[in-house]
Amino acid sequence: MSFDPLHDIPLLRGPVPLTHLVLRHFVRSGDSAVDATCGNGNDTLLLAELVGPTGRVWAFDIQQEAMESTARNLAANGLPDRVTLVAQGHETLAGQVNTPLNAVVFNLGYLPGGDRGIITRPETTGAALEQALGLLAPGGIVALTVYPGHGGGDAERRLAEGWAAKLHAPLFHAWRMGQINVTADAPYVILVQKGA
Amino acid sequence: MSFDPLHDIPLLRGPVPLTHLVLRHFVRSGDSAVDATCGNGNDTLLLAELVGPTGRVWAFDIQQEAMESTARNLAANGLPDRVTLVAQGHETLAGQVNTPLNAVVFNLGYLPGGDRGIITRPETTGAALEQALGLLAPGGIVALTVYPGHGGGDAERRLAEGWAAKLHAPLFHAWRMGQINVTADAPYVILVQKGA
Repeated sequence: MSFDPLHDIPLLRGPVPLTHLVLRHFVRSGDSAVDATCGNGNDTLLLAELVGPTGRVWAFDIQQEAMESTARNLAANGLPDRVTLVAQGHETLAGQVNTPLNAVVFNLGYLPGGDRGIITRPETTGAALEQALGLLAPGGIVALTVYPGHGGGDAERRLAEGWAAKLHAPLFHAWRMGQINVTADAPYVILVQKGA
Repeated sequence: MSFDPLHDIPLLRGPVPLTHLVLRHFVRSGDSAVDATCGNGNDTLLLAELVGPTGRVWAFDIQQEAMESTARNLAANGLPDRVTLVAQGHETLAGQVNTPLNAVVFNLGYLPGGDRGIITRPETTGAALEQALGLLAPGGIVALTVYPGHGGGDAERRLAEGWAAKLHAPLFHAWRMGQINVTADAPYVILVQKGA
């Protein structure tokens, strides 16, 4: 999964490759990063590779299934040592982490392949986003993927866009990045960077 | 201006650093690229660096002032040999270039610091965008910056978004990337990638 800039042309089929492209630009060896919703652990794995042996990743999820899936994913790639798995909601972020963060990743909604009744909640996500902002290092980013196409999707969308739109520029650079030749309920990315 | 991924954290203050981040991901040594509106030559210069000594860049502009500024910029960086300057409108693209393109960059509107009465026109820009699509290599991109805040800005916006929204997915991945904590007339990026 390591990145060879001479041969690997990522296809921007959706939020996942876009977010990964952005993370590859902003997360460096020795960095500290958080996966606020680790799900199946794909973002956690990328972050663990990017921060290298001297960096640190914290991965949060409330579902045991997600924790186990992420742990397996990291073990299969020989990277469990640089990741702290936190089996709690991301609203406990500031209680768990007190180092400046270079990147924080959120994927809202439900666990892919898991119980669709268990979704991220605006109250806890909102608290976690504020804590993430407070922990960002200069130049650090929050990459948030919104999935409007499920039951709680409208509330998520309002939360995410309302939060980002209110951030003061240029203290924070806040972007909305969405595909415009797909259906209106397609997932999209909110990217916020702390100014330097 | 060369890019050191270990030390250079780009700040996403607006469309220019975002477009440059994307170009650094998608343009490789040996590639072919077009700057459809070379203006002061900053995008041309980045493309010339990225394609390397075995690649090729074509840079279009209808204004003599832009041609001269770009030529000076390239000469100052020792890179004029890999760039073909074309003192014609970008609607002549397909007549000038017949090689698959990895990237095509457009900046709509007027020349920064130049005559604001001379702007890109929807008819010629629309023709150039279609020609660019036809020339894209698999995985190749069109990066288009729209500046809604000038006299012709509304027409540009309609052209750019209408064009991108009609492209068939997944033959093309079409994105709109704009800041959401700035004024509504702030410039933004339309990014289109040809599927592989």
